[in-house]
Amino acid sequence: MTIVAIDAMGGDNGVAPVVEGLKEALNNKEFKAFLVGDEGILKSFLDKNNLSNSKRVEIIHTTDVFPMNEKATNAHKRKDSSIFRVIEIVKDGIANTCVSAGHSGATMSLATTQIGRINGVLRPAICTYMPTIGSNPSLILDVGANTDCKPEYLVDFALMGYYYSNFVVGIEAPRVGILSNGEEDCKGNELTKEAFRILKESDILGKSFIGNVESSDIFNASTDVIVCDGFVGNLVLKASEAVAGTISKILKNEIKRSFYRIMGAFLLKDVFRALKNKVDYAEYGGAFLLGIKKPVIISHGKSNARAIECAIYQALKAHDSKVYDKISDVFANFKNLKDTK
Amino acid sequence: MTIVAIDAMGGDNGVAPVVEGLKEALNNKEFKAFLVGDEGILKSFLDKNNLSNSKRVEIIHTTDVFPMNEKATNAHKRKDSSIFRVIEIVKDGIANTCVSAGHSGATMSLATTQIGRINGVLRPAICTYMPTIGSNPSLILDVGANTDCKPEYLVDFALMGYYYSNFVVGIEAPRVGILSNGEEDCKGNELTKEAFRILKESDILGKSFIGNVESSDIFNASTDVIVCDGFVGNLVLKASEAVAGTISKILKNEIKRSFYRIMGAFLLKDVFRALKNKVDYAEYGGAFLLGIKKPVIISHGKSNARAIECAIYQALKAHDSKVYDKISDVFANFKNLKDTK
Repeated sequence: MTIVAIDAMGGDNGVAPVVEGLKEALNNKEFKAFLVGDEGILKSFLDKNNLSNSKRVEIIHTTDVFPMNEKATNAHKRKDSSIFRVIEIVKDGIANTCVSAGHSGATMSLATTQIGRINGVLRPAICTYMPTIGSNPSLILDVGANTDCKPEYLVDFALMGYYYSNFVVGIEAPRVGILSNGEEDCKGNELTKEAFRILKESDILGKSFIGNVESSDIFNASTDVIVCDGFVGNLVLKASEAVAGTISKILKNEIKRSFYRIMGAFLLKDVFRALKNKVDYAEYGGAFLLGIKKPVIISHGKSNARAIECAIYQALKAHDSKVYDKISDVFANFKNLKDTK
Repeated sequence: MTIVAIDAMGGDNGVAPVVEGLKEALNNKEFKAFLVGDEGILKSFLDKNNLSNSKRVEIIHTTDVFPMNEKATNAHKRKDSSIFRVIEIVKDGIANTCVSAGHSGATMSLATTQIGRINGVLRPAICTYMPTIGSNPSLILDVGANTDCKPEYLVDFALMGYYYSNFVVGIEAPRVGILSNGEEDCKGNELTKEAFRILKESDILGKSFIGNVESSDIFNASTDVIVCDGFVGNLVLKASEAVAGTISKILKNEIKRSFYRIMGAFLLKDVFRALKNKVDYAEYGGAFLLGIKKPVIISHGKSNARAIECAIYQALKAHDSKVYDKISDVFANFKNLKDTK
């Protein structure tokens, strides 16, 4: 049975959504969970959710929580923090995978140094699902791990994203594109042009490399994996969230201005729900690290129970698909390919 | 009376929206227009719109149109194209400002070489209005002129954006921020960190420089001028448009699935119209160049009549505000400041 380590204390909303999300996930999937945090507090929440006697939940006691406003680099010093312990038990092989809604920089930093990079991967990337008008979400990476990239990093991202899309999302031949300011081969900045050249000339992805894509291709189901540096990815991701949020705010403000409008909104409530489900981060379970030896899921700091539940599914799927082993194999060979270049 | 040169042929939708937009603008504002394009065709459209006898419209005849799929660098060879002639009469002082919905790269390239850069400005930038939840739109630049920037370019963008926001948008003390992956001073990539340092240490903008801002600050009315390199700006702008478009598509698809939903949407038609007005590019009249000696407005290739009308207002406001003279003055002094660094 797959074992998931869960940081029960790191998120902005405390323990409640973590235990509620875990309960829902336990109802739907076979797995075992280590819940890392203050035993007294966790026990009371497990009680409330009728999980006290579950043989599939075990508490690992620690009272320290790494604060959201702390520098990521300090994470290594707080060896009793819930996030440190979570990463540690994955490193030690006690758990197969983990989920944290805590400090994302700390999670990434600990995962890289403790669990370690896959041999041959130059830099780990943060990858996230994006909603599309099609039936599958797209993947975009990097969305924040590396603010300044070398072209070779983007090549690694392309390769890792390809296999994740293939093994976990289940796309047979994922289409991989470089995020650029135009679709033509000549478009891009110095970084993306060189990454384009390497991907084209090395032919590592064959026809799966579809060249440059634009921001609209993130959402229009034309591309399965979108590759960019972590600075660009972070800005594009946050802009997308901000636009969706702003539109929702404008609609709400406008709707409450008259009775007819409120009635109209009532008739459209299923429409708005369908839209929310499509664009809601919670449904996608958060971001994850690629380039690390084990699956590490980084949930949103403000995760609700549904987000934690989906993050657990994500962790299980990532582990059970064996995609991390596959990526290790690929990079073992890819490293030779790089060395002989 | 201010004189506007208008490319009547360059846009994707041909002459009709240009003449209709011009007619509406003439009804609302005092100005004179040179309409550049095929005399025969233009005359028939002026006839249709009862503008044949207007003393405020003059045709400049040319039949050549620079195609959208042509390389921008070829624009200099086609001296009879409508866009070439438009830029030429601004350069020659026959018109004060201009509007084109044609090839944006060609427009930018011709404007830079013919009209010329303002002394001291390292690179011109494309600037555009963005909708906010507040009463004023924000400005973002560069959104596409410079894919690879040096920190000093971003400093120039900050300064030009500041005065445009002040003179044209009418903000008393515009808040200028660098688009970054976090608000903390330490966030950013190498480019933005260095631009941050120069802006902070030189204190050119004083308290108006508010440091790093995030993508959400484009829309939440917390920042008046957002500065970034042209690659990042282009991707963020297109991502924003794509998200708004995707949400609209999902809503439309969901609404038509039942009679109740259609009724609900009918009751909300004013809500959707208000939203559309807020996010519609047409209301903002397109992008414009900053760093060139005269105002050059680059409308969307797919501009409708309303977009052309607003682009003309934009051109008039930019000229009449004398912001381009102000920027020239500022950079004359700023140049000395740079030289003595």
